[in-house]
Amino acid sequence: MTDIVRIETNQRMSRVVKAGGLVFVGGQTSADHTADVKLQTAKVLEKIDGYLEKAGIDKTRLVSAQVWLADIAHDFAGMNEVWDAWIPQGHAPARATVQAKLAAPELLVEIAVVALG
Amino acid sequence: MTDIVRIETNQRMSRVVKAGGLVFVGGQTSADHTADVKLQTAKVLEKIDGYLEKAGIDKTRLVSAQVWLADIAHDFAGMNEVWDAWIPQGHAPARATVQAKLAAPELLVEIAVVALG
Amino acid sequence: MTDIVRIETNQRMSRVVKAGGLVFVGGQTSADHTADVKLQTAKVLEKIDGYLEKAGIDKTRLVSAQVWLADIAHDFAGMNEVWDAWIPQGHAPARATVQAKLAAPELLVEIAVVALG
Repeated sequence: MTDIVRIETNQRMSRVVKAGGLVFVGGQTSADHTADVKLQTAKVLEKIDGYLEKAGIDKTRLVSAQVWLADIAHDFAGMNEVWDAWIPQGHAPARATVQAKLAAPELLVEIAVVALG
Repeated sequence: MTDIVRIETNQRMSRVVKAGGLVFVGGQTSADHTADVKLQTAKVLEKIDGYLEKAGIDKTRLVSAQVWLADIAHDFAGMNEVWDAWIPQGHAPARATVQAKLAAPELLVEIAVVALG
Repeated sequence: MTDIVRIETNQRMSRVVKAGGLVFVGGQTSADHTADVKLQTAKVLEKIDGYLEKAGIDKTRLVSAQVWLADIAHDFAGMNEVWDAWIPQGHAPARATVQAKLAAPELLVEIAVVALG
């Protein structure tokens, strides 16, 4: 059995877990509920940048991502515009994007990623 | 190529797969469709405990979890109450929780986890 | 830090990423939007076969899968019929299947998998 490193852990979840050489960042949302999808996506990706940094890596190590949008017909293009600009050229992860109602009605986007440590 | 261990496998899916040092438990639901979300969550987590045990580990090894709720506005708090009590202190996984209609209308919650072997 | 191999990468996503001994195939959909769920599932699984081959493996190495259906009440049985026939006996992955609206209204099914390299 190898070690598990948990970062920003509470009784419900950890923001990041390092295990088996991988870095798992849980589903992140924007604290700013009044923002549109572009601003919420930018906030989410900024949070992910911060959690990757706490895990000792950065977004060039992304392996896999899941994106949930509250309204995919309305917000797919806006999320992608911010996402595409954030991805370092040649380092895009495997990704799946689907629609899902999120934990609060003001949340428009949630993103979880797996990276390599 | 390293070994893959599949537990409770049928033609459609395995309940658990061990591979690359990780343990993947597929999406579990409650067999008791008449239960409310707290009882269904308790049943699901009991099943996950059993599958982790079959894989030779326990819930202190949780790395990542996904929770789907059929009605997140109604059932988020109830699921979390049971979840929070189930998580061993200091061992919470990365997690994402979204709303999704599940495979049968009576199902209120489905949970999949990844753990470290 | 170990190597990451990205296959069919653009600015948004990679079709396949190999990292840490695992192979991540992102969410795949059918290019043939006019097909029913059985034909769309067959197309998706054919694409996954191709991406696994590009990663140097095949479907006997499947570890985990997520299936999203646009209409789970209507299409669960049809998807499963094609899925069950596709899985090599004794090699079924852990799986979760939920309903989600996908990136285009004609898309009925999306599937992402993780395999062992």
